[in-house]
Amino acid sequence: MREPFSLKNLVRAGLDKLVPYEAHLYPDVIKLDANENPYPFPEEVAREIGQLASGDLLSRYPDSGAVKLRQAIAGYAGVQPEQVMVGNGSDELILNILLTFGTGGRVLITNPTFSMYKIHALVAGARPIPVPRRADFFVDVPALVTYARQPESKVVFICSPNNPTGNATRLGEIESVLHQVNCLVVVDQAYLEFGGEDCVPLLNQYPNLLILRTFSKAFSLAGLRVGYLLANPDVLRQMQKVKQPYNLNAFSQAAAAAVLEHRDIFRGQIGAILEQREVLRRGLEAIEGVTPYPSAANYLLFHTNYASKMVYQALLDRGILIRRLGGPELPGYLRVSVGTPEQNKQFLSVLTEVMELLGRE
Amino acid sequence: MREPFSLKNLVRAGLDKLVPYEAHLYPDVIKLDANENPYPFPEEVAREIGQLASGDLLSRYPDSGAVKLRQAIAGYAGVQPEQVMVGNGSDELILNILLTFGTGGRVLITNPTFSMYKIHALVAGARPIPVPRRADFFVDVPALVTYARQPESKVVFICSPNNPTGNATRLGEIESVLHQVNCLVVVDQAYLEFGGEDCVPLLNQYPNLLILRTFSKAFSLAGLRVGYLLANPDVLRQMQKVKQPYNLNAFSQAAAAAVLEHRDIFRGQIGAILEQREVLRRGLEAIEGVTPYPSAANYLLFHTNYASKMVYQALLDRGILIRRLGGPELPGYLRVSVGTPEQNKQFLSVLTEVMELLGRE
Repeated sequence: MREPFSLKNLVRAGLDKLVPYEAHLYPDVIKLDANENPYPFPEEVAREIGQLASGDLLSRYPDSGAVKLRQAIAGYAGVQPEQVMVGNGSDELILNILLTFGTGGRVLITNPTFSMYKIHALVAGARPIPVPRRADFFVDVPALVTYARQPESKVVFICSPNNPTGNATRLGEIESVLHQVNCLVVVDQAYLEFGGEDCVPLLNQYPNLLILRTFSKAFSLAGLRVGYLLANPDVLRQMQKVKQPYNLNAFSQAAAAAVLEHRDIFRGQIGAILEQREVLRRGLEAIEGVTPYPSAANYLLFHTNYASKMVYQALLDRGILIRRLGGPELPGYLRVSVGTPEQNKQFLSVLTEVMELLGRE
Repeated sequence: MREPFSLKNLVRAGLDKLVPYEAHLYPDVIKLDANENPYPFPEEVAREIGQLASGDLLSRYPDSGAVKLRQAIAGYAGVQPEQVMVGNGSDELILNILLTFGTGGRVLITNPTFSMYKIHALVAGARPIPVPRRADFFVDVPALVTYARQPESKVVFICSPNNPTGNATRLGEIESVLHQVNCLVVVDQAYLEFGGEDCVPLLNQYPNLLILRTFSKAFSLAGLRVGYLLANPDVLRQMQKVKQPYNLNAFSQAAAAAVLEHRDIFRGQIGAILEQREVLRRGLEAIEGVTPYPSAANYLLFHTNYASKMVYQALLDRGILIRRLGGPELPGYLRVSVGTPEQNKQFLSVLTEVMELLGRE
């Protein structure tokens, strides 16, 4: 007689540390939670992209090497195509970096930061080690270097501008880390188009530098999942062993290339977002009990004296969705994406109302 | 002084067994190598899909739960939406099955079969164990059950119809395996629309059954990378821990749902492919020195007396791309996808010429 079937016995070791991700959908809200480009997608570009969807592009397997898109990205970023790998969003690239270099080793994460580094480290069977940022949210470079020089340290993640705190790490500090350690240093520059210093000038000098970037933010393609990695071709060759051959679908490849051809339109939107970031920051400063932090990205971190959960829920009840952070690292903190002028005005007005309400309770 | 940087020291253990996948592009050939649907993508469906590419679908993150597409798939496959998970191609689902259940354990692979099971087992840090099929390419059920009952066996892969051999495993045999083992049994039915028995009737009875299916073959969406998994909701809940939240882009989600609404058009194409499979098989039988095998899929395995490399190259030199298998398991074997009537005629004529030529050498 065999034992009865038990799924629990089959789940691999270590997975109990992870909870399934559940994204809730909130229809009919002002969506300021995911740092997307808030402006309508340019109609002429959408029309052009829509016309790409026919024939062989749909029915044949995509170009596994993504040759055209990698060339377009190389031109935009100022690197060689051999230094570019594309992914099904940066998420896939983070997982593949960790499956290639992290498994069985230690991965250093400069908290508070983007949650996927830790999650994917656990998925890849690596050990995530938090290296807390300083009280001002800047990277603690001496501590990071000390940890990174310990045995088994394989990969360091620095998000710059950092999600969710908004501050960017100075190029000199990144170079100082690259110079002092032998592990791979991944600088996630998903928000580079909004601020912070471009790390590409360090790429040829430091074979341990990996730069993550994306089409999901400034270039309005969050729906199509296009991230890219700029790195030493030797690093990318190792990652090819792990990469799914057809990881980026043909339509997303073609659409991202088309968007780069129209980048002037998006530059205009980026300019508007930077102006609105300042409007939003001043607006937050003017609300009693609210403290915004400086930002080099398209979102603002802010703090109130109330539990972030309460502020978050009161905003949501009034039709505005932002990001609640909280937790032991960021108690009382929230993150709001820069929206259109109308959205920002509405948000500031509702937050003012909510803060007054909470003050009276 | 620190040591000089060495990438080799950073690559994780076990990755040396893998070689980077390199897909070559051959422009202007008759492409019968990847089992795609050879018919032109229906223009009216392409137009409808193209119009989906605008606004929020592009600029906002996709629905992480893929609710609409999972409902459409559930209706098509005859299951509940809770039994459906979608992936960025079946490839991603194979990797996620192995990252959830395989890592650190043994994965049984019924060779010769689709190469991704072994590759992803290695990527996930599982140990792939080949369980050779019989000489007629049918699964050796007693051997498979024996292996599957050994400790550390976590996942079994059965491709049915099997790629590249073309034969399908009978439902009774799959049930016999499910009944006798406690590990997960993944039946990859990527080619189900072309033949073999649907495993869905076993799904509610066997919590260890996982069924993989895809839009890449019968439904002509290889370019958009849409695979799906039908399984026990408890299995899917564990896999949610590993799944990237936004793994399937918004356009592919919407396009796949649209294709299912137009499935009658594709049913017509499938009918034509099944007729052409018979034409192709008879044509291969008529060529001296060529032996085709029975197929329940949209491709045919065949054998010649020459090295598969020579036949493959001679065909490619004449503008026809098929799949070369060879290797110790399938010496002298090749696989050809069923094309349009014109493509099949052309292929048979060129293969006849090639066989005569090789016979004279």
